[in-house]
Amino acid sequence: MAQKVRIALDAMGGDFGPAVVVAGAEIALARHPDSEFVLFGDRMQIAPLVEQRLRLAAVSRVVHTDVAVRMDDKPSQALRQGRWKSSMWLALDAVKRGEADVAVSAGNTGALMAMAKFCLRTMPGIERPAIAALWPTIRGESLVLDVGASIGGDDHHLVNLAVMGSAMARVLFDLERPTVGLLNIGVEEVKGMEEVREAGTILREANLPYLDYVGFVEGDDIGKGTVDVVVTEGFAGNIALKTAEGTARQIGEYLRSAMSRTLRARIGYLLARNAFTALREKLDPRKMNGGVFLGLNGVVIKSHGGT
Amino acid sequence: MAQKVRIALDAMGGDFGPAVVVAGAEIALARHPDSEFVLFGDRMQIAPLVEQRLRLAAVSRVVHTDVAVRMDDKPSQALRQGRWKSSMWLALDAVKRGEADVAVSAGNTGALMAMAKFCLRTMPGIERPAIAALWPTIRGESLVLDVGASIGGDDHHLVNLAVMGSAMARVLFDLERPTVGLLNIGVEEVKGMEEVREAGTILREANLPYLDYVGFVEGDDIGKGTVDVVVTEGFAGNIALKTAEGTARQIGEYLRSAMSRTLRARIGYLLARNAFTALREKLDPRKMNGGVFLGLNGVVIKSHGGT
Repeated sequence: MAQKVRIALDAMGGDFGPAVVVAGAEIALARHPDSEFVLFGDRMQIAPLVEQRLRLAAVSRVVHTDVAVRMDDKPSQALRQGRWKSSMWLALDAVKRGEADVAVSAGNTGALMAMAKFCLRTMPGIERPAIAALWPTIRGESLVLDVGASIGGDDHHLVNLAVMGSAMARVLFDLERPTVGLLNIGVEEVKGMEEVREAGTILREANLPYLDYVGFVEGDDIGKGTVDVVVTEGFAGNIALKTAEGTARQIGEYLRSAMSRTLRARIGYLLARNAFTALREKLDPRKMNGGVFLGLNGVVIKSHGGT
Repeated sequence: MAQKVRIALDAMGGDFGPAVVVAGAEIALARHPDSEFVLFGDRMQIAPLVEQRLRLAAVSRVVHTDVAVRMDDKPSQALRQGRWKSSMWLALDAVKRGEADVAVSAGNTGALMAMAKFCLRTMPGIERPAIAALWPTIRGESLVLDVGASIGGDDHHLVNLAVMGSAMARVLFDLERPTVGLLNIGVEEVKGMEEVREAGTILREANLPYLDYVGFVEGDDIGKGTVDVVVTEGFAGNIALKTAEGTARQIGEYLRSAMSRTLRARIGYLLARNAFTALREKLDPRKMNGGVFLGLNGVVIKSHGGT
């Protein structure tokens, strides 16, 4: 895209504050030279960090505010104390006012969702927004949603997720008709998950022109890339996401210890180091984390605190 | 344990039938020389396989039946057609009659659960049995349950799972007071998951002498080994298990392709081959699969079809 992308950044979000956010903006600018940034937060902390980076400074503007949402604020607290004035709110509001194309925050997910709903409102027909994660697979990448915005949900919620997810997959993966699967467990006569089966019936019968519903998928289908869009409610989706991250980290741990156990293995490691570096990139759990909020009147990205 | 363990085997279960089951029994015997086997199924198929293996033949007995539960039978079908006479039923019945200590089947999980409930009945106070998985972690191993027997469940079901799981962990890991965590998502003000929070309150207030309830854990805590016993209902638990398996397989795939891309990497791989073999053992998804049925009057193990 040669079009300028205007990014509103909550510079105070995340576990490490402005230092990490500004460093992240620099990386984003290197990858997407057509970006422009508005950074919201404490000018005294942000401005020196931006000024050190000449290219970033040239396309950035800092908007001062004293108020920041804390990582341990409850969503209701964050709304009460941070509405109209926190760095998180101001970033969202920039999207609402059309001054930015996308708001990015590494802050408190619950607070960001509550504020985003309050500030941007949900799209017509959508009751609850969703968080979609871009999931690396053997085939490439899939979209998994919801990974934590909703807890539970009826058949209509799941159908909404399928529609929102496939709309995003069409743009992101440049597909006419993304394949969509409902996450389920392989057991026949699944009790209590009527909503998943109901959603399947609705999707099959609706036969929508812009998505290709292929049926149920299981947890191991996510990494295989069996479908472009994996649909589930936020509880199971979040547990799947976190479990995959944990497994990747665990295997990285095993690999490190296996490769340092003997001299042969250490020499082997040195020779294959480039391959390992590439692998580590792929396994980086921070790549999997975060997500895009769908169903709002405006684009909001929750980025990972450590990125 | 120097005690003899009598194993009732459903020799017809699984995707590959007796050949894999008998081969598995031979491996089990090598690891646990004090095992004895009763194999249920088609004698014509089983007997020649057993006779080829002298050590196994010496401690095995074959009980013939024509009926086998198919992998795609519904639980209700399996019960209707296979009760009293299928290889799966006869293996369970051997445990009921005290002729075997444990029944093992690689067959249809739903059918096995239905038959096990019907044949062995649940323990007093337990409404629904659970499937517990032994999960490899960075610290060692944890028990995760339920990974697919129940779908959804109220606070009392979760408390039951915590009690059953910690009883198993005490025996398996030889611990006085295993640590127990409830699987949840990290977001504050989690809506709709009152049952998880309620179960947490009950467990905290009960302060049981034989388990140490430590609070909520997230998906990535499973692989870290944060607690000895991870408690969740079967839908999320099954999705977590399958997702972890899928991630392990996916990373194995990445590793293979990374290690064969350049000559240097290939040489490095050859030098570090032993380390990779050890790693592959650890990553083997078949090690993670299957599980032990808890809450029945008798021990039933679902083994993986491919093992």
